[in-house]
Amino acid sequence: MKLASYTSKGHSGFGVVVDDGIVDCSNRGVGQSLKQVLAAGALDELRNAVDGAVADRAMDDVTLLPPVVSPGKVFCIGVNYRKHVLEMGRELPEHPWVFTRSADSFVGHRESMLRPAVSEQFDFEGELALVIGKTAHRVNAAAALDHVAGYCCLNDGSIRDFQRHSGQFTAGKNFWRSGAMGPWLATADEVGNPAALQLETRLNGEVMQAAPVSDLIFDIPMLIEYCSTFARLEPGDVIATGTPGGVGAARKPPLWLKAGDTVEVSISGIGTLTNSVADE
Amino acid sequence: MKLASYTSKGHSGFGVVVDDGIVDCSNRGVGQSLKQVLAAGALDELRNAVDGAVADRAMDDVTLLPPVVSPGKVFCIGVNYRKHVLEMGRELPEHPWVFTRSADSFVGHRESMLRPAVSEQFDFEGELALVIGKTAHRVNAAAALDHVAGYCCLNDGSIRDFQRHSGQFTAGKNFWRSGAMGPWLATADEVGNPAALQLETRLNGEVMQAAPVSDLIFDIPMLIEYCSTFARLEPGDVIATGTPGGVGAARKPPLWLKAGDTVEVSISGIGTLTNSVADE
Repeated sequence: MKLASYTSKGHSGFGVVVDDGIVDCSNRGVGQSLKQVLAAGALDELRNAVDGAVADRAMDDVTLLPPVVSPGKVFCIGVNYRKHVLEMGRELPEHPWVFTRSADSFVGHRESMLRPAVSEQFDFEGELALVIGKTAHRVNAAAALDHVAGYCCLNDGSIRDFQRHSGQFTAGKNFWRSGAMGPWLATADEVGNPAALQLETRLNGEVMQAAPVSDLIFDIPMLIEYCSTFARLEPGDVIATGTPGGVGAARKPPLWLKAGDTVEVSISGIGTLTNSVADE
Repeated sequence: MKLASYTSKGHSGFGVVVDDGIVDCSNRGVGQSLKQVLAAGALDELRNAVDGAVADRAMDDVTLLPPVVSPGKVFCIGVNYRKHVLEMGRELPEHPWVFTRSADSFVGHRESMLRPAVSEQFDFEGELALVIGKTAHRVNAAAALDHVAGYCCLNDGSIRDFQRHSGQFTAGKNFWRSGAMGPWLATADEVGNPAALQLETRLNGEVMQAAPVSDLIFDIPMLIEYCSTFARLEPGDVIATGTPGGVGAARKPPLWLKAGDTVEVSISGIGTLTNSVADE
């Protein structure tokens, strides 16, 4: 099942993605947002509620939002693909590097990621993200995947000079509408083993990043174990698992995003998150 | 005006603090939470609504929560008091060091801050925090204070070994219920010039940190200008301005919080945030 949040003609809703559109689920008694459905543990109820339904919104008539519109926490993992760690000139980490992004630093599928006027160093980072379905606090890696509702693509759009302003990445990772999440949430049962997925980022059609998720230094169960050691992960919370080699900052000369560019993050079994770039 | 959020016998509310208690404002038509009041720009309306009212909840009958219960963003500033920077052996920063905390990493006044079983290195950090009252995006320092609703005390409780696990502070700064905010929000008009405030942190009655807010390397207007350069600061968002010298980690030998300890963060013109420490 693929789940999306959207706005359309003043209506904010969420629903199940079918071939040609979305079956709206906002008024089916299972919750008023995808986050509420996850918090209520009502994914199966949702599945039953839409069984056999046809799309009531065409995909072209909606503006997609990040699948969970207002996650309480978004933890992002840095330096977590072997190849990316090497290209950035770093050593393999002993523990996950965890930083955060605010909910409003993201746009949805087909919305423009914004390059702020204060910097030219706008870079892409294609990533696999997981969304928590069941509260996870002090969860062992062995049981971690039971707490995942599903997966989506994420573009951890980064303003590199601000990222390097201090020892903390926050400033460069939290520009308003500089990242993207989507196109939808593919439920865990549909995705199966996340380590078997393949990630590819394209800029204007050209492949920039390509890696198997199995190249993660800290895999998804380990990330959930680590993050749930300090934080109480709640339904709707997001963990972005890190980006592979090939980012613009590591190229010679560096390659920065500019207005009119199109970035696509494709992950097998999920889909493709497409965003144009615009000057803010 | 001093504003507090609380729970009492199953009721969640917010109100105005008077001598002996709280005037509940949840049902006065100005909003259902302090965050809603701030978002509606309704502080003056709230002031009028409670004019002459007497407390309807005694302070001893309520459990205080962080003044804004679910801030969308909590930006924390590291290495921002000259004396603390020197004691930690760091250089003066060129730009603010910004990290974040999740809303549920905080408890309110008189609640226990929790020391997790995985670490003994639980440390206090007394801080002045500001709460945004009016959306701030790309705001100059000169106009920044117009966007502040008020101020509170904050304890940026830190698990030092996790803080040093990687180059990012996140893990050590986001343990569930390891920090505190409160006791209430003192409105900006009541506080006046924040640079004139004095901060003191006491552990079991003994002064551990004492500094004038004027010792900040990046003062409050500069912090708002910087954070609003990347983020869109919304009503209820928090900026914790950093901690002065005297933290436990910098003492010889290091001094760690343990169950039964009491930490107080006092700021002139605001009040005292008091928390005991408990093992989780």
